[in-house]
Amino acid sequence: MADQDAQTPVGIEPPALSVLRWDEPPEGPSVVLLDQTRLPAEEAELVCADVPALVRAIRTLAVRGAPLLGIAGGYGVALAAARGEDVAQAAVRLEGARPTAVNLGYGARRVARAHRAAVESGTGPEAAAAVALAEARALHQEDAAASGRMAQYGLDLLAELLPEGGGHRLLTHCNTGALVSGGEGTAFAVALKAHREGSLRHLWVDETRPLLQGARLTAYEAGRNGMPYSLLADSAAGSLFAAGEVDAVLIGADRIAADGSVANKVGSYPLAVLAKYHHVPFVVVAPTTTVDLESVDAASIVVEQRAAAEVTEFTSVVGAPSGGGAGGTAVAPLGTQAYNPAFDITPPELVTAIVTEEGVISPVTGVGLAELCARSSQVTIS
Amino acid sequence: MADQDAQTPVGIEPPALSVLRWDEPPEGPSVVLLDQTRLPAEEAELVCADVPALVRAIRTLAVRGAPLLGIAGGYGVALAAARGEDVAQAAVRLEGARPTAVNLGYGARRVARAHRAAVESGTGPEAAAAVALAEARALHQEDAAASGRMAQYGLDLLAELLPEGGGHRLLTHCNTGALVSGGEGTAFAVALKAHREGSLRHLWVDETRPLLQGARLTAYEAGRNGMPYSLLADSAAGSLFAAGEVDAVLIGADRIAADGSVANKVGSYPLAVLAKYHHVPFVVVAPTTTVDLESVDAASIVVEQRAAAEVTEFTSVVGAPSGGGAGGTAVAPLGTQAYNPAFDITPPELVTAIVTEEGVISPVTGVGLAELCARSSQVTIS
Repeated sequence: MADQDAQTPVGIEPPALSVLRWDEPPEGPSVVLLDQTRLPAEEAELVCADVPALVRAIRTLAVRGAPLLGIAGGYGVALAAARGEDVAQAAVRLEGARPTAVNLGYGARRVARAHRAAVESGTGPEAAAAVALAEARALHQEDAAASGRMAQYGLDLLAELLPEGGGHRLLTHCNTGALVSGGEGTAFAVALKAHREGSLRHLWVDETRPLLQGARLTAYEAGRNGMPYSLLADSAAGSLFAAGEVDAVLIGADRIAADGSVANKVGSYPLAVLAKYHHVPFVVVAPTTTVDLESVDAASIVVEQRAAAEVTEFTSVVGAPSGGGAGGTAVAPLGTQAYNPAFDITPPELVTAIVTEEGVISPVTGVGLAELCARSSQVTIS
Repeated sequence: MADQDAQTPVGIEPPALSVLRWDEPPEGPSVVLLDQTRLPAEEAELVCADVPALVRAIRTLAVRGAPLLGIAGGYGVALAAARGEDVAQAAVRLEGARPTAVNLGYGARRVARAHRAAVESGTGPEAAAAVALAEARALHQEDAAASGRMAQYGLDLLAELLPEGGGHRLLTHCNTGALVSGGEGTAFAVALKAHREGSLRHLWVDETRPLLQGARLTAYEAGRNGMPYSLLADSAAGSLFAAGEVDAVLIGADRIAADGSVANKVGSYPLAVLAKYHHVPFVVVAPTTTVDLESVDAASIVVEQRAAAEVTEFTSVVGAPSGGGAGGTAVAPLGTQAYNPAFDITPPELVTAIVTEEGVISPVTGVGLAELCARSSQVTIS
């Protein structure tokens, strides 16, 4: 079991990633993204000067991750307002760019609501656009703060759930770090805080097929932060559980239904079943904005089916052919059909705890979730 | 859930694949392999004129799959004998090429034993080499026959286990068809027979990371035979189980211990746990030569750990860089360590049945396994 040597000593932290920012050059405002499809090979910026460009960036996964999509949706609406475009329409188009991510709609609607309120109270277009931008910035800052609080709650929970000893061996799936958030992320932020406080023994990083967010992004973030980690094919996780090498699973969420069903990157549900079978805690870390009380249960969550080419071809730049198949290397015979759901749904009975910025619920119940969200909406929705 | 259209009508069968054959051109004998690392892009032959070339082909997975490795091991020893080389040493070198595959050692030792017996009875070198070759050919033919018998036993078992209805929806992992066998394979042969007899509704093909044997090879064989199939990322299998889309799991085996523990391609064990959780039969199809009565249980099976580059890089030709990393496209940051076991081990309590050419055992017990093997050794070991 090869260990990744720490690449930076504990205590020396790398500069924060600039994942998404608002820019106002003379030629007009834009949302500037770190293009996540080009990581880890290069740190390239992608400038989105209008809503269609941002929608494209969301669809091709140049920007991704539930909380960050909320922030992108918010700035996208602010961008439409700044350009004097139809703000309500922009919000709808942004929300539709990826159907499962609830935060995207939350961010877009929240900023659109602030903008509309300003317009309805007689504010002029420029000032209303400034209100929209301020709301997007507030959302961004709240998310960064939420990230820090989730990390603390998550770490406290691990200390409670896991025995003392040589530190935690945590397994994670997909990417849930600074690349998905206004702060340091969700599940990954817990592991990172454990690392900084000396209680991370090892981070097992699922590569996360088909788009390899674990290999491309989580390994990049873990290396950047000097964390001890190893990458694995998703299905090798079974061997780690069997060998007793996993103390807890930490994942994020794309949407949490009112009953506590968790939609997250495909591959989360098999981990939940493995964790249950091996009596290992399965912990979901997500801000309360991920909870969608209008989705009653698993059946009411729409799971996005993505293009077969993501499975049948290999592309060095993720998302680039956007299902068209151009530029990829075929790994399956021509014409092969694929079953390619982007997400799966883990029922609440397989989730040990949900960690949010408002606290932890365990066991996971609809009542507990509703209480947390009520607390949250007093804080974050003005 | 996209269906693969049948590419050939039922009843019209494609020509049999020439996966491995003995050749005797004027320049000397050789073992000619269909180079499986180049599939599905091209059907290229690889000529192995000596044992080191064959060992290299085994190591780089140009030839692979438990039963076929046994045949390759047998012909490899025959090749050493034909070249007047040290046969015992050749058998040891071949057996060591991949430590987990028990059939490899079985085939190599069996042919070496036949050769030694001939030499000890005073047979001259050329005639002894002919004896070795005859033994390798016998092994090859027995394996083809075993394949047909496993397919029939497997299909009978499915008819017993599964309700009548619109046909079986079978999930398989890795590649277990004609490419691994002297005949039509193990688990895949059952699905193929079901297809031919009109009882296959759908074949779910796990892509099988890291080397993508499912995408490259099983999809190729399924397409070639006109079977209805879809490819999926390994971890998307969880969603299929949850949706009730899997009637049974069929896998092969690389080594079965005396207690019924099954070593097979990494990713088999998580499927076994998922199958158990969803009350779906988990069926292992393997010839009795895969059973290693000297391995008492899971703990006595050596699991091969392979190079990190298989996980951290993508190569269009599988196995070519043999872990050196040359020629691959990096998908993870430089220097990323990987946990990359080639196999995992499924304990007997998770296996519904083991189907062999001598019959089926269910439930899986050490006693049942020993009985089957005793029956088999009367037939195949002279």
